[in-house]
Amino acid sequence: MSIMSEISSCPPLTRESVAAAAELIKPYIHLTPVHTSTTLNTIASTPQTPEDLAGTEWEGQKPARPKIRLFFKCENYQKIGAFKARGAFHAVSRLTSEQRSKGVITHSSGNHAQALALAAQTFGIPAYIVMPTISTPSKIAGTQALGAKVIFSGSTSVDREAKVAEVQKEHPGVVLVPPYDHPNIILGQGTASLEFEQQVENLGTNLDAIITPLGGGGLLAGTATAMYGTGIRVFGSEPRYQGANDGERGLKEGKRIETVSTLTIADGLRTPVGVINWEIISDPNKLKGIYSVTEEQIIKAMRLVLERMKIFVEPSACVPLAVVLYNEDFRQMVEKEAGEDGWNVGVIFSGGNTTVEAIAKLFPQA
Amino acid sequence: MSIMSEISSCPPLTRESVAAAAELIKPYIHLTPVHTSTTLNTIASTPQTPEDLAGTEWEGQKPARPKIRLFFKCENYQKIGAFKARGAFHAVSRLTSEQRSKGVITHSSGNHAQALALAAQTFGIPAYIVMPTISTPSKIAGTQALGAKVIFSGSTSVDREAKVAEVQKEHPGVVLVPPYDHPNIILGQGTASLEFEQQVENLGTNLDAIITPLGGGGLLAGTATAMYGTGIRVFGSEPRYQGANDGERGLKEGKRIETVSTLTIADGLRTPVGVINWEIISDPNKLKGIYSVTEEQIIKAMRLVLERMKIFVEPSACVPLAVVLYNEDFRQMVEKEAGEDGWNVGVIFSGGNTTVEAIAKLFPQA
Repeated sequence: MSIMSEISSCPPLTRESVAAAAELIKPYIHLTPVHTSTTLNTIASTPQTPEDLAGTEWEGQKPARPKIRLFFKCENYQKIGAFKARGAFHAVSRLTSEQRSKGVITHSSGNHAQALALAAQTFGIPAYIVMPTISTPSKIAGTQALGAKVIFSGSTSVDREAKVAEVQKEHPGVVLVPPYDHPNIILGQGTASLEFEQQVENLGTNLDAIITPLGGGGLLAGTATAMYGTGIRVFGSEPRYQGANDGERGLKEGKRIETVSTLTIADGLRTPVGVINWEIISDPNKLKGIYSVTEEQIIKAMRLVLERMKIFVEPSACVPLAVVLYNEDFRQMVEKEAGEDGWNVGVIFSGGNTTVEAIAKLFPQA
Repeated sequence: MSIMSEISSCPPLTRESVAAAAELIKPYIHLTPVHTSTTLNTIASTPQTPEDLAGTEWEGQKPARPKIRLFFKCENYQKIGAFKARGAFHAVSRLTSEQRSKGVITHSSGNHAQALALAAQTFGIPAYIVMPTISTPSKIAGTQALGAKVIFSGSTSVDREAKVAEVQKEHPGVVLVPPYDHPNIILGQGTASLEFEQQVENLGTNLDAIITPLGGGGLLAGTATAMYGTGIRVFGSEPRYQGANDGERGLKEGKRIETVSTLTIADGLRTPVGVINWEIISDPNKLKGIYSVTEEQIIKAMRLVLERMKIFVEPSACVPLAVVLYNEDFRQMVEKEAGEDGWNVGVIFSGGNTTVEAIAKLFPQA
């Protein structure tokens, strides 16, 4: 089956399909907790100082005074430490048993590699993971520990696609499960926000908005799909470093930006937005906007999550909170739209796969 | 009222009194979550290697093979980031409104300072906190931010007691709330294990044992009091560095060790066990044992909690897990007592008040 006919056999990209995905993957994933923090609410609802704005594009402007109550969906506590488990389990669950028996393949050096390895292990099928030779040894070992066969390739996309084709030729029928640009992945990632919506309802209130990180766009497109028609506004967030804000720039230019080359510390968000993902998030009925932040702002937000909320997250997971706290365009928009009532803003902590050494590098001692 | 008559008016040190304390403080504290981790269960139930034991007192011995299922009570998510909020709220709740109106005083540079400041702020009464001049600026600022009046003293116990006496003279009737050596503090800290017991029951199983850190002994004595008569065994855990294992040594010598001078990284556990606390934990019907670990073992356990469990904890909080994973005396005991069934072991993560810079110092880059 070709990729296109395989894709056309997927469920439609609707809230109902996300709900069906949630039922399918329920036995395999964690219902991750929702945290709140009065300290973070206070910080988010306190205007930045003129000093904070000095040197930014908002220098000299009057700081916004939004009222924000934050809710945090902790996907860092998800299986394999990131929301990626949702998409991978959904993609594997949707295969026929005949398809499944041939195994699955992907190229990824990040959380998707371990997510697919876990899903394959759970279903007792082979997983072939193509990883660049230069991948972090702990990520290679982690993927192998989940029973996957790791196959090394060069670092360029041409290298790894050639390697994937080679493995596919060697193992006829093996199913490619891409990291984000696929309906079943998008529907799977969307299940996090369905849970989130319900968990906040169980707390006796409702979300007004959800903001997620944006890399390849699986999580953001899934969230936008799941929340469409609910009145809950969906926003994306990106690092800005070396043009990593390809989503934000693409919305301005009116077209998907196809290549990005950045070494942002938010290493899960270095990829350009995928094709199917772009179709969804460039629809203004589904996505209300994309905002970006600097590396320093990501680090400041990360310190708050670690030290104040006591939650261990990777830098990519801190990007949405950095937008809420430090992006004046976002804050002015909330002040204007939400007024005196303020908004309940849901933040998805996408993952927690980092190391203490990486933290030491981000926060060097004086 | 003198300290002794004040103490004799406290509720008796029983499980029932802990339950009453839990009711009293319920409106003021968080019901903290319980986490589990299949990865940690696997590590805990896998024998250490001969290499792990090389250079330890167990070198050359056959590594123990205990079966351990772990449950983690996350008091790092408690108000002010540590279980200390429980004892402080209980002590303040128990005061008459006349006593309360005079305010409270303590000497502490750690979590108890902020806990008492928060309790006083909540009840709208003055709090006087005597802190050594050399305290970390962030801890001083944190205590002041909670509305407490911080009074500086020298670093010795004589210095700070003189300063406390001075403030008491200046503010007649102000009530001393000691950090651990007091029945109301002990009863308050015991409420964590009552919740824990119930939360694990709600998961459809039962705890066989609870292990807590041991510094001054408020948490351990409270846990031993709360669990007495339930069949749940209670254990203490200490750092060993520079004689910080005063509890363990005291049990061996048959008497409380009154002074300790250690710079263990588990900085919440540098104090000797208190007098009332010692009475409880030296009772073999209430406490089954105290085990100690090295600094390296604490750091190894901390890495697992941060990187694998994604929970941000301070070094002191990692001491019980370090015992479970690395102390062969504890592990042999579990293997022998629990046999093939294994034990459900409850670990109390006592707090999360550390900084990213402190983490950077513990895990320097290669």
